Amino acid sequence: MANSINIDSKRLTDSLQTLGKIGQYKDVATGLTGVRRLALSAEDGEGRRHVVSLMKQAGLTVTIDRIGNVFARREGTNPTLAPMMMGSHIDSVPTAGMFDGCLGVMSALEVIRTLNDNNIETLRPVVMAFFTDEEGCRFGVDMLGSAVATGRIPLEQAYALRDRDGLWFKDELEKIGFQGEAPVLLKPPHAYLEVHIEQGPVLRAKNLDIGVVAGVQAISWQELTIQGKPAHAGTTPMELRADAGVAAARINLRMREMTEDAKYGTQFRATMGAIRPHPGLVNIIPGQVIATVDVRNPEDAFLKKAEADLIAFYDEVARREKVKITWRQTARTDSVRFNDTVQALVSKGATSRNLKSERIISGAGHDAQEMSHICRAGMVFVPGEFDGISHNPREFSTPEQCANGVNVALDVVLALANEA
Amino acid sequence: MANSINIDSKRLTDSLQTLGKIGQYKDVATGLTGVRRLALSAEDGEGRRHVVSLMKQAGLTVTIDRIGNVFARREGTNPTLAPMMMGSHIDSVPTAGMFDGCLGVMSALEVIRTLNDNNIETLRPVVMAFFTDEEGCRFGVDMLGSAVATGRIPLEQAYALRDRDGLWFKDELEKIGFQGEAPVLLKPPHAYLEVHIEQGPVLRAKNLDIGVVAGVQAISWQELTIQGKPAHAGTTPMELRADAGVAAARINLRMREMTEDAKYGTQFRATMGAIRPHPGLVNIIPGQVIATVDVRNPEDAFLKKAEADLIAFYDEVARREKVKITWRQTARTDSVRFNDTVQALVSKGATSRNLKSERIISGAGHDAQEMSHICRAGMVFVPGEFDGISHNPREFSTPEQCANGVNVALDVVLALANEA
Repeated sequence: MANSINIDSKRLTDSLQTLGKIGQYKDVATGLTGVRRLALSAEDGEGRRHVVSLMKQAGLTVTIDRIGNVFARREGTNPTLAPMMMGSHIDSVPTAGMFDGCLGVMSALEVIRTLNDNNIETLRPVVMAFFTDEEGCRFGVDMLGSAVATGRIPLEQAYALRDRDGLWFKDELEKIGFQGEAPVLLKPPHAYLEVHIEQGPVLRAKNLDIGVVAGVQAISWQELTIQGKPAHAGTTPMELRADAGVAAARINLRMREMTEDAKYGTQFRATMGAIRPHPGLVNIIPGQVIATVDVRNPEDAFLKKAEADLIAFYDEVARREKVKITWRQTARTDSVRFNDTVQALVSKGATSRNLKSERIISGAGHDAQEMSHICRAGMVFVPGEFDGISHNPREFSTPEQCANGVNVALDVVLALANEA
Repeated sequence: MANSINIDSKRLTDSLQTLGKIGQYKDVATGLTGVRRLALSAEDGEGRRHVVSLMKQAGLTVTIDRIGNVFARREGTNPTLAPMMMGSHIDSVPTAGMFDGCLGVMSALEVIRTLNDNNIETLRPVVMAFFTDEEGCRFGVDMLGSAVATGRIPLEQAYALRDRDGLWFKDELEKIGFQGEAPVLLKPPHAYLEVHIEQGPVLRAKNLDIGVVAGVQAISWQELTIQGKPAHAGTTPMELRADAGVAAARINLRMREMTEDAKYGTQFRATMGAIRPHPGLVNIIPGQVIATVDVRNPEDAFLKKAEADLIAFYDEVARREKVKITWRQTARTDSVRFNDTVQALVSKGATSRNLKSERIISGAGHDAQEMSHICRAGMVFVPGEFDGISHNPREFSTPEQCANGVNVALDVVLALANEA
């Protein structure tokens, strides 16, 4: 492939920065300015309207489905063929930077703008998409929009979700004006490609330009309810306590130990992100703790083993601390393997542009894994600075790192959109 | 002493129940109705106005000092002599029952009502008191009103405290109308007596009626700030994490281990009541945790040793988890030994009424320990049901248990208020 066409790196950076100004917040922990654009918040609504206006400026036809996923189509010379799709999400965690998700969406826009600038026609339509609520921070289920669009989660189940303030997903979607008319089940595209920051340290540490994403690790989320007995911290003898906080601490440290145990492979990751003791006061033994468990493994078998062992450990802790522990699964995805052809095209694009690439497993969940259930899907990772920190205002990939990824994506799109 | 005079048990119970109706809430954890009358809240204001009206109905002269402590005086035959004082507090933790503090205040009222009913004159005045913010739940410093009245904490320091919503102590005191005119430094009374529920299981388990409180254990409260690095739970390798939640868990479990270590005596109690991870989301490694430490020991030397070892352990955890740990002391009291004469009078009162009593160390802090710095002070404990559970809606002492304690207090007051 002759590299005669390149995306506009400066335009890409500008579009990321402009989107990153929507929903800015001052991060207390770091003192930095970050992005907070929680799914279906007013800020998400503002971000969505901004991206839709860019789509229209690029001459695209915009469609919104019933869960608020947004699709913008650039027509192909044969409009009856399934389109080549690119996309990601623009919702964020509460403590985000400006790259997670947004790079994928702005990549799609930049690829289309480049096609426009060069008057390039493709055989198949090219569609750019952003999916609703990929992060799952607010309503508790991640990759929600793409999971509904690809049939894994029913629309009514998504509508019935509530956030911590008791607000319904459906009401919030209506409130920002993004409950569209299009049917929610997506007609399989020809293929799907997503550019994303690695959100980890590997590419940067190895001095690589491009990650050819081979798949996504398996992910399990649980919410634990630990029921103890609230009592006076000064007068209650240790042997009579049922301290839900101590129980949570035992589980947290056991998770840490498991990550160091070869029994679960070398890539097991475990996090207790939320710990909410009730009543949460200095002189009252926590009578209840709500805590979350996030465990991930590239190998399905290792994750299943870890889940089973954790659940058995809950019983052990419950007996030892005289508490009751119940848990519910809030998310669960098996590992995903991306399409070989798409992987090969990403590799080839990197090579032809003299970029160093390597196969990599994604540690995070992505919309691409949902799309992989209905079409050939793949991802391009770009490195991140500062150990690839993400979900943090320090999240940063250089303009060059970003442009490399989008140039490779352009090559892949040109190849796949012209397949008969 | 002839036991010709007795308090009115039914009237005592009624007064407790009436006060307990102010600030009722439905407890989510237990499904029970509890009391929530946080210091200087609207509910505290309502409770205070209720008690002041009862004081006035009993013919007492009410004085309010500049920190909102309320004193009600029944004149003695020699008004120039220092008064005999009884009291406690009516503010509560957010998950309280109706006895903690309130029993002491309603005991004082009941003793005075009994004196009134029997037309008993005492040589010295008898003063009933309730002190501001004994619990310390809202502004972070317990026994605040009595500590200011006895000179341990300066008034301006108390005024400058803020609650979690940033509201100032002084503003909140003004808002409920209890910033009085009386000077805040209390003229030492002749003696001080406080009736209180044990808030522990000992008396009930030993089938005792009365606890002769020998003293209060030493108490240390700290607030820890653990600074880690918020990062993506799926992509951040374990070895690159700085998980403030894991650090908090290590400290919590170390505290538990220390309570099982004879090095700190057999009565060491330790509690991590608050654990607040930021941002507190399932898929983000906690970048910061605010946690509280409550450690207590009847022996000052054991507590000092435990504090020093804990602080050394913070450094160990900080190195191991790559976090920064800072702490500040939010409360610190040495152990207190109550006055021997008062203890002897409580013992004698119990014996003369055929009540079984034993010396006991208080696990909780009480206003009496502040008062012990300016006068002879003592306490009467009564047993509590359900292992003496407290700071919980299940907190309960039977009418008989309460009446026994107040009858003994009546005897002690008659003795001390008639000392020349």
